[in-house]
Amino acid sequence: MTEFSKLDHEYMARAIQLAKRGQYTTSPNPNVGCVIVDKQGKIVGEGWHQKAGTPHAEVHALNNALKKTQASDLPSGATAYVTLEPCSHQGRTPPCADALIKSKVSRVVAAMVDPNPLVAGKGLAKLKAAGIETQSGLLQVSAEKINRGFIKRMQTGKPWVTVKLAASLDGKTALNNGLSQWITGPLARQDVQRHRAKSCAILSGSGTVMADDPSLNVRYSELNISTDELKLEDLRQPLRIILDGRNQLPTNLKLLQAASHNQAGDVLLINGQMSQCDFPEHVSQWQAPLVNVDGTSGSKLDLHAVMTKLGGKQINHIWVEAGAKLAGALLQNKLIDELILYQAPKLIGGDGQNLFDTIAIQSMQDLTELTWTDVRHIGPDLKMTALINRD
Amino acid sequence: MTEFSKLDHEYMARAIQLAKRGQYTTSPNPNVGCVIVDKQGKIVGEGWHQKAGTPHAEVHALNNALKKTQASDLPSGATAYVTLEPCSHQGRTPPCADALIKSKVSRVVAAMVDPNPLVAGKGLAKLKAAGIETQSGLLQVSAEKINRGFIKRMQTGKPWVTVKLAASLDGKTALNNGLSQWITGPLARQDVQRHRAKSCAILSGSGTVMADDPSLNVRYSELNISTDELKLEDLRQPLRIILDGRNQLPTNLKLLQAASHNQAGDVLLINGQMSQCDFPEHVSQWQAPLVNVDGTSGSKLDLHAVMTKLGGKQINHIWVEAGAKLAGALLQNKLIDELILYQAPKLIGGDGQNLFDTIAIQSMQDLTELTWTDVRHIGPDLKMTALINRD
Repeated sequence: MTEFSKLDHEYMARAIQLAKRGQYTTSPNPNVGCVIVDKQGKIVGEGWHQKAGTPHAEVHALNNALKKTQASDLPSGATAYVTLEPCSHQGRTPPCADALIKSKVSRVVAAMVDPNPLVAGKGLAKLKAAGIETQSGLLQVSAEKINRGFIKRMQTGKPWVTVKLAASLDGKTALNNGLSQWITGPLARQDVQRHRAKSCAILSGSGTVMADDPSLNVRYSELNISTDELKLEDLRQPLRIILDGRNQLPTNLKLLQAASHNQAGDVLLINGQMSQCDFPEHVSQWQAPLVNVDGTSGSKLDLHAVMTKLGGKQINHIWVEAGAKLAGALLQNKLIDELILYQAPKLIGGDGQNLFDTIAIQSMQDLTELTWTDVRHIGPDLKMTALINRD
Repeated sequence: MTEFSKLDHEYMARAIQLAKRGQYTTSPNPNVGCVIVDKQGKIVGEGWHQKAGTPHAEVHALNNALKKTQASDLPSGATAYVTLEPCSHQGRTPPCADALIKSKVSRVVAAMVDPNPLVAGKGLAKLKAAGIETQSGLLQVSAEKINRGFIKRMQTGKPWVTVKLAASLDGKTALNNGLSQWITGPLARQDVQRHRAKSCAILSGSGTVMADDPSLNVRYSELNISTDELKLEDLRQPLRIILDGRNQLPTNLKLLQAASHNQAGDVLLINGQMSQCDFPEHVSQWQAPLVNVDGTSGSKLDLHAVMTKLGGKQINHIWVEAGAKLAGALLQNKLIDELILYQAPKLIGGDGQNLFDTIAIQSMQDLTELTWTDVRHIGPDLKMTALINRD
């Protein structure tokens, strides 16, 4: 186990802070931050990855350092702290490992290695081969947290799935007659906008979409965000994915109307059979395989196949806004990673609608267990965040 | 509006702290604390009410002061801070107003007047007539909080009702097949023991009692409490009240067995018709009137009549451990003051059992609204406390 100094921790914490500045914009790339420190321990360069197809964090930090020191090379003995192992392969931009070697940096500390097991360690190995001292694992847990979606996709091929639900204190999402606007308050709904904005895609089901006719877009004004955190022109609209296993979706829905790219995301309909509907051209469709509850071919969308397909489309993190049916199906298929429940201090009573439509379990051992990661008041409501425990 | 100094606030805060030391033992009397301060601002006496039938807080504080100063009178110019207006009537002990007059205290500050509107102000008036400066209203909100049950009973004749529920994150109290042991963890269950110990009575319904066969007692060892806070010999067992509108209760239940007074509380069965069952002699019974949902005479226990009856039996604070049926009926009858929900980080799914069995509401305006008073982690679970808003 490598030992790191207190200062090492501070510089890496700063790099993680920088990485988070890309949280609304880097998709499908990961959030990465980089800090360059000279021999005396002074930060001489900082950078973070801003957008896919543009320079990586290391390049920004190196350029920032050269500009600051007004020199053509880094000061000798410099260390680069980077939240993710520098890449060693040519993508849309040149490999960062090469840029670091060229910069004559003496030491590179990475918070974590590349999450793709097939390339993990290759960037650090390239640096080492060039005579640069390398270390990794500093503040790894914090670094992993900011790229959970990217990491999961790299490791499993499937996106990270966060299911958002809003309910009364007695666990009801709507009245018996379907009314639900609004159980939670405006601040909770503003918070939902921010989560949408950070996600690669928003997923919903045909039932919810037909009942509520939502836009499922990000409304910049409702984010209530400073331009320092996110400028209007940098707003990225997440892909809108609708599951329609029974091909019941009409064509006159709000989210099927043409919209400019800064107003709403592209739409992907996932059908159980090739749709007969006359959807507008800008609506993509994909026919998913069908399975029965027991996994044999049948009548329900194969949600595992859906997730693998979406992972293949570079979707790191899916934000699910769905009814009890889809939420329940995702739960039963063990496809939920995280649950965010906005709970209002209200009681609806036993006749209200449930959070998860699932098959009854028979034993206490079959309960789904979670681990709280955050509980906070948000306006009059509580926001509870929990991770689903994996056996 | 009387103005109070910073020191006044500190002495009253101390008196409230003292009052709370009686929270496990004073029922059916209120919790009261008293602090006596000399002219120089030194605390010379402290006391709190410990048990019904024994001296009140003021008497303890006066005795404590005389003992401390080894004098036969209080130092001249002393002030008594008391969390509740001193009584002016002869009860099981002599009136405290008389004791204060006799002590030659110069000033009496009460946090609140007597909550019984028929006697409110009479104690202070008696003091004033004897030439003592009197004030009230200092830290009144905090003082009211420690005697909510007593205050409600004095003002309305009915007890304060706290409904305790334990549920999964998706608002289910049990599996479809009834299994529920244990959704919440041992620390939550220990916390329940403390709430039971602070209550005048525990209320449950025949369905729950028949399904779980609980003891509904306080187990000192499970309180995990210091002897400083509560000694075993001071443990008071709350009355156990079982509602049995349909007279379906068998006689072989645990809680119907004879038990010593320090092991379990008395039992009161409230029936819908005089029971035919051959219950043991120590089990009291009361036949409550029956009403229909619309208030006409009918087939369900008249819960308002039940509460008025219990108020008349000097029950200040009822702790309800019931199933969805009784909890729902109390909710619909607007008889719940406070809700304590222990929420476990688990998911049961839509087929689990609901928190409240109620008639479906048709409009968002008909939701029951609450106000959070406390949300905290307790072991792996969340404990949420909220007050039901009154229109």
